[in-house]
This record gives sequence, structure tokens and C-alpha cells, in this order.
Amino acid sequence: MAMAFESTNKECPVSAGKRGVFISFEGSEGCGKTTQIGLLRERMESLGRRVEQFREPGATELGERIRHLLQFTPEVADMSARAELLLFAASRAQLVSERIAPALEDGRDVISDRFIDSTTVYQGIGRGLCLEQVEVINQLAVAGIVPQLTIILDMNPGDAFERLVQRNGPVDRMEQQPPEFYEAVRNGYLEIAAREPARMRVVNATLSVQDVADAVWNHVASLLG
Amino acid sequence: MAMAFESTNKECPVSAGKRGVFISFEGSEGCGKTTQIGLLRERMESLGRRVEQFREPGATELGERIRHLLQFTPEVADMSARAELLLFAASRAQLVSERIAPALEDGRDVISDRFIDSTTVYQGIGRGLCLEQVEVINQLAVAGIVPQLTIILDMNPGDAFERLVQRNGPVDRMEQQPPEFYEAVRNGYLEIAAREPARMRVVNATLSVQDVADAVWNHVASLLG
Repeated sequence: MAMAFESTNKECPVSAGKRGVFISFEGSEGCGKTTQIGLLRERMESLGRRVEQFREPGATELGERIRHLLQFTPEVADMSARAELLLFAASRAQLVSERIAPALEDGRDVISDRFIDSTTVYQGIGRGLCLEQVEVINQLAVAGIVPQLTIILDMNPGDAFERLVQRNGPVDRMEQQPPEFYEAVRNGYLEIAAREPARMRVVNATLSVQDVADAVWNHVASLLG
Repeated sequence: MAMAFESTNKECPVSAGKRGVFISFEGSEGCGKTTQIGLLRERMESLGRRVEQFREPGATELGERIRHLLQFTPEVADMSARAELLLFAASRAQLVSERIAPALEDGRDVISDRFIDSTTVYQGIGRGLCLEQVEVINQLAVAGIVPQLTIILDMNPGDAFERLVQRNGPVDRMEQQPPEFYEAVRNGYLEIAAREPARMRVVNATLSVQDVADAVWNHVASLLG
């Protein structure tokens, strides 16, 4: 549809004023991202918006295979931090080119469960990789497509972990880390939020589901205007 | 063995003067890398050297799974050039940390069938990605471990492709490219060779197997001293 429109009316490209908005959610496992993304999506759709929802790593055939390598392959349990970083980036590069960019271009909104900030925090700060190199790799992977709004669902790591185990039972490879790791992740998110106030919003994830949803909606409503 | 030696004699680390040499082979598919690597390895081992031989992408559990994704997965045939670049880099990061660095540290020599120059040439020049970004990703993947000598087996791309089809039959995803791609790959290798004369040696791969092996050996003998 977009193609036909463009080809008959070059003066007025389809993307002008019709591009979708791009929102990402960040936070420790167990902080309630899935629930809140579902509620936000419903609310946006009730306004007549078309919304695409993705999770990282994954959301494409290649990305889901990479997710499997990262999470459920005991043979590669000794994965180097660098290899892990590059696999996340590969999954993201495919997601952007195959799904996110076309959706935004077509006027659909995109909500992503994790995006570049997860890489900065988990691989850069959490695993101690060089943050400048992580940044270059993030940039290469996304090719200029970054969220306009990023919601950080913030809570004490111990509480988040407890929620997670109650919900899922035993944890997978990505989740088997010492408590200091989760503390570093939380602080990493808060540091990024302080550095990029225009894009990032921190929401207290220990409130009730409805209160968190209302706080999220206030930020999204500002973005939608 | 190396660990025991180190722990009993801290003054004289095992790596001093005993590190192995690292040699990579580059060139189009069909240029004779496998044959020449086999001959070089035999010749080095006949001198009492211990030699490890790897191919890229692959050579680790993770790397072989990535190789499979890159070559034999029709479901991901629309892989983005960025995702491809990052997958090669992930495989290489794991190979360096899991196998190459420990081998060199232990005094074994390493011969790699492809390494960083393949990425520069195939993904950077061949697929038109930003060469500076490719360079940063190469650096991150190898963490300072680069070959002391790189042999480029150079031949006309048409001849190399004909050899390949005669040997293997139908080609896989990585090999399905227009002729201009292979021409760009060859020229890319020759450009890198001109830029890095201390490390790179170009060998005419259309000579007889024995003549190519002798030319390769001359370069390796200089390195070994």
C-alpha cells in the first residue's frame, strides 16, 4: 500500500506525519514488562492505533534461533561475553530490518520488550565489556532506528528475582547470575535514565499493576500528544 | 601443563619466547585453502611443532551452530547484512577466547582457515557495510589476537567458482552471489594486502599444488626464522 502511494505521489511521502511511534520497555526479569506491555497495547489499540509488539532477543526466525542459543543450549554454557554481545546485536539487526523499520514506515506503532539499553546494561555494565565498543555495536545493529520513549520498570532486584522464580520455577542460563549482577543492572538502568532524560522514564514497578499502567500511560500520552 | 609450569616458576612465564605463531589463510572459495593448510600443517609438524587448525565460522560448539545458521537455514534466507556481520563476529569471539588464545599461550601454532580479513572483504566491501564499523567489530571480536602472517591465495574468481562447483556440486547461501561480488572480494583482498604489507602475502593460487605449497612455505619459514 505504502509503495503504491509513494509511486503516485512523490511530493508527499507516506512517512511524513504518518510514521508510527517506537516505545521500548526495560527492567530486570520479573519486573512486570509483559503485563504492562499488554495493557499499554490494549489502550493504544482502543484509540484506533495499530500496534506491533516484539521481544528481544527473538521476534524473527533468525532471532528466535539466536534466543535459543543464548538461553537453552547447555553445550555452549562457556559462551564468551563478547560472543554473547554480538549474538544479541545480530538478533536486533535482523529485527530492525525485517520488522521494526517496515512497521514504523507503514504507520504502525512498535512496542519492544527490551532493546539497546538491555545490551548496554547487561553486556556492558553487567559483564564489564567496554561501553564505547558496546555503543558502536548498538549503533551498527539498529541503523538509526531508536525508541522515542523507553520505560524502565524499576524495582529491587531481590524482589524481582523472587517474583520470577514464583512464576517460572528454575531459572535459565541468562538468569543464573550472582546478586551483585542484578544490582549492577538496576544501577546501570538508572544511570542511563539520568544520562538520557529526553527518552527515558523510570516507573516504580512495585506499585499495583493498575498504578504502574497509569504511570506508563501518562508518559505515552505525552508522546502521542 | 602450562599452568603447572607457571605456578612453580613465576619468574619465567611460559609465554615468553614460547608462544605459538598464528597464521591465517584467505581467498575465494575454491582457491585451494584446505589443501594448502593441510600441506603446511604437515610440514610444520615434521619440524616438531604442535599445530592447531581451525575454520571460520565454526570450530567451537557455538561457532558450528552459527555456521549452520549462516549456510543451511532456508527460513532465514532474508538475513540482513548487519546480522550476518555480527554472527560471523560472534563465532570469531568464541573461537578466540575458547581455542586460539589458549593454544598460542600454550606454545602451539594456530592455522586458521579465514579470519578477520574475510569479514572486511565479504561483509565490508562485498556487502557494502561501513568499513570503520566493520573494523571496530573485528577488533572487539578478537580482543587483540591477530595473525602474524596472512596468506592470500589469489586467483580469478571465475576459475575459483568453476573449481568449487566441480568439487561440491550446487552452492549454498553464502556462495550464491553475482560475479561482481566475487570480483569485489578479490580486489578487496588485494587492497588489504597493499595496506598491510608486513602481515599479508599474496600467493598465485593457479600454480600447481606443489608450487603454491613452496611459495607458502617460503613465507612461513621467514616467520619462523
